[in-house]
Amino acid sequence: MADVKIGENERIDDLQFKGLKIIQDIDGFCFGVDAVLLANFSKIKNKARVLDLGTGTGIIPILLAGKSEAEIIYGVELQDEVSEMAMRSVRLNDLEDRIKIVGDDIKNLSSHVEKNSFDVVLTNPPYMNPNGLINENDKKAISRHEIRGDLEDFMMVASKFLKPNGRLYMVNRTLRLVDMIYFGRMYKLEPKVLRFVHSKVSKAPKLVLAEFIKGGKSEVRIEPPLYVHNEDGSYTDEIKKIYSNPSVKF
Amino acid sequence: MADVKIGENERIDDLQFKGLKIIQDIDGFCFGVDAVLLANFSKIKNKARVLDLGTGTGIIPILLAGKSEAEIIYGVELQDEVSEMAMRSVRLNDLEDRIKIVGDDIKNLSSHVEKNSFDVVLTNPPYMNPNGLINENDKKAISRHEIRGDLEDFMMVASKFLKPNGRLYMVNRTLRLVDMIYFGRMYKLEPKVLRFVHSKVSKAPKLVLAEFIKGGKSEVRIEPPLYVHNEDGSYTDEIKKIYSNPSVKF
Repeated sequence: MADVKIGENERIDDLQFKGLKIIQDIDGFCFGVDAVLLANFSKIKNKARVLDLGTGTGIIPILLAGKSEAEIIYGVELQDEVSEMAMRSVRLNDLEDRIKIVGDDIKNLSSHVEKNSFDVVLTNPPYMNPNGLINENDKKAISRHEIRGDLEDFMMVASKFLKPNGRLYMVNRTLRLVDMIYFGRMYKLEPKVLRFVHSKVSKAPKLVLAEFIKGGKSEVRIEPPLYVHNEDGSYTDEIKKIYSNPSVKF
Repeated sequence: MADVKIGENERIDDLQFKGLKIIQDIDGFCFGVDAVLLANFSKIKNKARVLDLGTGTGIIPILLAGKSEAEIIYGVELQDEVSEMAMRSVRLNDLEDRIKIVGDDIKNLSSHVEKNSFDVVLTNPPYMNPNGLINENDKKAISRHEIRGDLEDFMMVASKFLKPNGRLYMVNRTLRLVDMIYFGRMYKLEPKVLRFVHSKVSKAPKLVLAEFIKGGKSEVRIEPPLYVHNEDGSYTDEIKKIYSNPSVKF
């Protein structure tokens, strides 16, 4: 294992999957269930060129390096401290040949990679609209709120860097479903598959997983729901399977 | 009960609700679960002015006359034979003072009613794209396929005749979810509530109920799913309740 420095507020977590590990910020910045579900939902062909917009800790590129035979996975992260932490996680896993972390705004991406050059783009974008209450210096706030890039920007950038017929995978709050669909079609990313994530059978879904195809035809397929908990509060078999092996495709 | 003629291929069905009845065409044209769910899903205030686009047998206006205190309910139906049958159902129920059936194309609606004058519009629109295989003279085909009016037309017309902040209620196949959302926002009808209808807990939803608000703000709320059958194939309690009394609002 590479010799990698770990900061005072950081810890190394074992992903329980092919020996992969990740550095996380104890106070600020940990990946959530969203990222694991998104990595699991995506379909990545062998030798694919993959791009993760707003990569945070680098969790999605690292999971995909384990799950897929992608040739190269770029992760773009605006915040210097966070992208630097993601780079150390890549080194920690000896994945520098397959994962490139770009520390820049997604709007500057054409300085780093070619347009129309990716088979797959993924994103777990900031999921709330900006409001006056959050501190702009707060790392969590920048990642979770639309201070420095809104959903429309993510769609525009995804469309620009995907090959024709390339796929965008997104996880988001269901509150933003209309924006996802509207901006998707506006930027020629047709929503083709949706899967809703419910905490329980009887509850409204709070998360949605979506596959968009650049230049795809209209008509969307909705998959059977993903339920996280059984009625007694225990995890469903499907969630256990995803967590025990994020590469399982169901 | 008014003296109303019934054709050879027609029958009178009792709606099992406030003594209401409906005439249906045995071979061609019967209302489905879609219409009952849509009538149930809609919220109609007292003295509301209501418009049903593509009313078919008139099932939605007749159910709403029973369920609500709407002042007036217009039902628009393009096909002469079908609108004429709906008019007889209205007479059969002595509802001529509250329900007006307009036998015309929704695109000619401004010859009959005022723009920006309705509190609620409902529609169970043709749900498939046109293709070359169907017979244009077939009544079912015209109602179910987009031969004479596509989803975009329904949205445009709904927006034109709703008051500001008026509500559109739609039921459709989930295949058309992206079109519903995209054309909705395009015509200033913001999707605000979605409810998916699943045949069973483990199945993908095939129908969706949607509430749009004219001039509404972004952000959509998804309601808990509506399941039609239990795992053993019997109807769920919720569906039994809707069918035993279509006016129940849950």
